[in-house]
Amino acid sequence: MKDLTYAVVGTGAIGGYYGAKLTRAGHEVHFLLHRDYDFVRANGLRVTSCDGDFLLPLVNAYDDVHTMPKVDVVLVGLKSTNEHLLRSLLPPLLHPGTLVVLIQNGIGLETDVQEWFPGQPLAAGLAFICSAKTEPGHIRHQCYGSINFGNFSCQDDALFEAVVDDFCQAGITARAVDYAEARWRKAVWNMPFNGMTVAMHAQTDVLLAHPATRQLIYEQMMEVIGAANALGINTLDERFAQKMMQMTDEMVPYSPSMRLDYDFHRPMEIDYLYTRPIAEARAVGFEMPRLEMLERQLRFLNADDK
Amino acid sequence: MKDLTYAVVGTGAIGGYYGAKLTRAGHEVHFLLHRDYDFVRANGLRVTSCDGDFLLPLVNAYDDVHTMPKVDVVLVGLKSTNEHLLRSLLPPLLHPGTLVVLIQNGIGLETDVQEWFPGQPLAAGLAFICSAKTEPGHIRHQCYGSINFGNFSCQDDALFEAVVDDFCQAGITARAVDYAEARWRKAVWNMPFNGMTVAMHAQTDVLLAHPATRQLIYEQMMEVIGAANALGINTLDERFAQKMMQMTDEMVPYSPSMRLDYDFHRPMEIDYLYTRPIAEARAVGFEMPRLEMLERQLRFLNADDK
Repeated sequence: MKDLTYAVVGTGAIGGYYGAKLTRAGHEVHFLLHRDYDFVRANGLRVTSCDGDFLLPLVNAYDDVHTMPKVDVVLVGLKSTNEHLLRSLLPPLLHPGTLVVLIQNGIGLETDVQEWFPGQPLAAGLAFICSAKTEPGHIRHQCYGSINFGNFSCQDDALFEAVVDDFCQAGITARAVDYAEARWRKAVWNMPFNGMTVAMHAQTDVLLAHPATRQLIYEQMMEVIGAANALGINTLDERFAQKMMQMTDEMVPYSPSMRLDYDFHRPMEIDYLYTRPIAEARAVGFEMPRLEMLERQLRFLNADDK
Repeated sequence: MKDLTYAVVGTGAIGGYYGAKLTRAGHEVHFLLHRDYDFVRANGLRVTSCDGDFLLPLVNAYDDVHTMPKVDVVLVGLKSTNEHLLRSLLPPLLHPGTLVVLIQNGIGLETDVQEWFPGQPLAAGLAFICSAKTEPGHIRHQCYGSINFGNFSCQDDALFEAVVDDFCQAGITARAVDYAEARWRKAVWNMPFNGMTVAMHAQTDVLLAHPATRQLIYEQMMEVIGAANALGINTLDERFAQKMMQMTDEMVPYSPSMRLDYDFHRPMEIDYLYTRPIAEARAVGFEMPRLEMLERQLRFLNADDK
C-alpha cells in the first residue's frame, strides 16, 4: 500500500498529539486549526511529552478546510459538542474511500456521522491518554498515550490495518479492537467519573475516598455494564468494574475532560456521553436510572443550557 | 375526658409553635429547652405569626427532663438526627398510657421509637407549616400551620381524638388521617425537594424552571409513589405527583429544612428521609434508584460524614 495521507480536524490535546507523532514519523499530515492557526504557521507545533519533547517547526497548517487536499485518512479530534460541524468540515477532505477516524468520547458518534455520510468508511479511535493543549500550538502529553481502533464500517481491511500500523510505527501503542465493545468498555469509566466529578465538585480520589460516592460510582459502572450486556456485548462483568475502580484508586487525583470543560465554562459533552448511550440502552429495554439522573443534573449545570 | 397535660420535647420552630398555641388556649404545657432555657425562663416564649403575634411571658420551662412531670401527651419536635436521645429523654415523662406524637419528617420514626418503648401509644404528627426559630425564645411562623395526625399504635381512641380536638380548639387546622398513607404522602414532596435543593445548590423555583431537573423531580416523586404502592398504599398516583409539582410552582421560592441544615452546617436528616424509606421499599422488592443516588450524594455532602 502506498503511503497514506492524513488530515487532523480538531488540532487539540488529542488530534494534535497523534497528528504530531505521525508527522514526526514522516507521514504527510494536514492540520486544520482555528484559533491557533497564525501561531502554528509562525512557530510550528510543540509537543512536551513524558516520552520526550519535540518541535515541528513547519507543519501543513490550514484555517479553511476548502484549501486542504483530499486525504486517505481523517483523524477527528473535535469536541463532540461540535459534532454537527463535521457536516461541512469533512466533505472537502473526502474521496469515496477516505477512512474517517473519530477519536472522541461517547456512544453514537459513528452512527450520526454515517447518517450524514452514507457509505463513507468510519472507525472509532479510543485514546487512553492524559494530554492537554495549554497554550497555542503547545500540547502537553502527561502520560499514557495508547489508542484502540474499532472498525465501524470500513470494508477495506488493508486500509484499516495500515492506519493501525502507521500509528505503531510512529511509536504509539495501537491495536485493532471490537468496535462496540471498545466504545462501551470506555463508557464504563467515562460515564460515572466525567459527570460525578462535575456534579459533586470533586476529583476522582475524593469521590472514591467516601463510601457513599464510592458505592454510587460502582453502581453507575454496573449500569453501563448492564446496558452493554443488553446490547449484546457479553465480555464485561463486575470484575471489569472492580478493575476500573482499582485502576482509578491507583491514578493520580484526576479531573476528566468534562470537569475541565465545566471549570472553564465550556459546554459539556452530555449528548454523546450520556443521552445517547441511555437512549441506546432504553431501545433494547434496559434502564440506566442513576446515569439518567446524572445526565439531568449535568444539563442543569451546563452553562449553555441555563 | 379530663383536660390533657402536654410536654414538648424539642422546643423549636415546630414543637415550640404548637406548644405555644396550646398554652395560649389554656392547656397545661411543659417545655423542655436546651440552649434557650435561660432566655425563656427570663423572657417567655414569643410567637410572631401571620395569624397574629403573641407573647407567653411565663411558660413551664425546663432544662432537665427529670424535673418535668409525667404528662398525658408528649409532642416530639426534635430533629430526627437526634432521635436516639428519645431513649433517655422520654421515660421521665411517660406513664403507661401517655401518647407520644412524633411531629417529625421521614419514614420509620414510629417503628424505631416503638422498639425502644414497646406498648407505648404512638402517633405521627405531619405538620404543613413554614416556621423558623430565628432567635432564642422567638418563633417566626410565616404561613400555613395545619397538622395531620396519624395513629400508629394508640388503642385509646378517645385520647387520640381528644388531642386532635385540643389542637382544633387552639386555632390549629388539625385532623386524623391514615398513618402510613400520610407519612408516604408527605415523602412524595420531601424526598425530591429536600435533597435536590442541597445537591444542586438551588431553591425549589430554580429546580422547577429547568426542564432537566423538573423532569428529574417528577421521576423522583414517582419513585416515592411507586414505593408507597408497593407497600400497599394505593391512594397515590401520578395525579398526586402532578398536584405536588403545581403546588410547588405556586409556592414562593423555598429552601426546605434539609437545605437550611446544610447551609448552617448542621447534620442532615438523611436516615429517616432517605435511608429508611429506601430500605422499606426494598424489603418489598421495590427499588428507588434515583433517590438512592440522591441519598449517596447527600451522605457525601453531609458535614458529619466527611
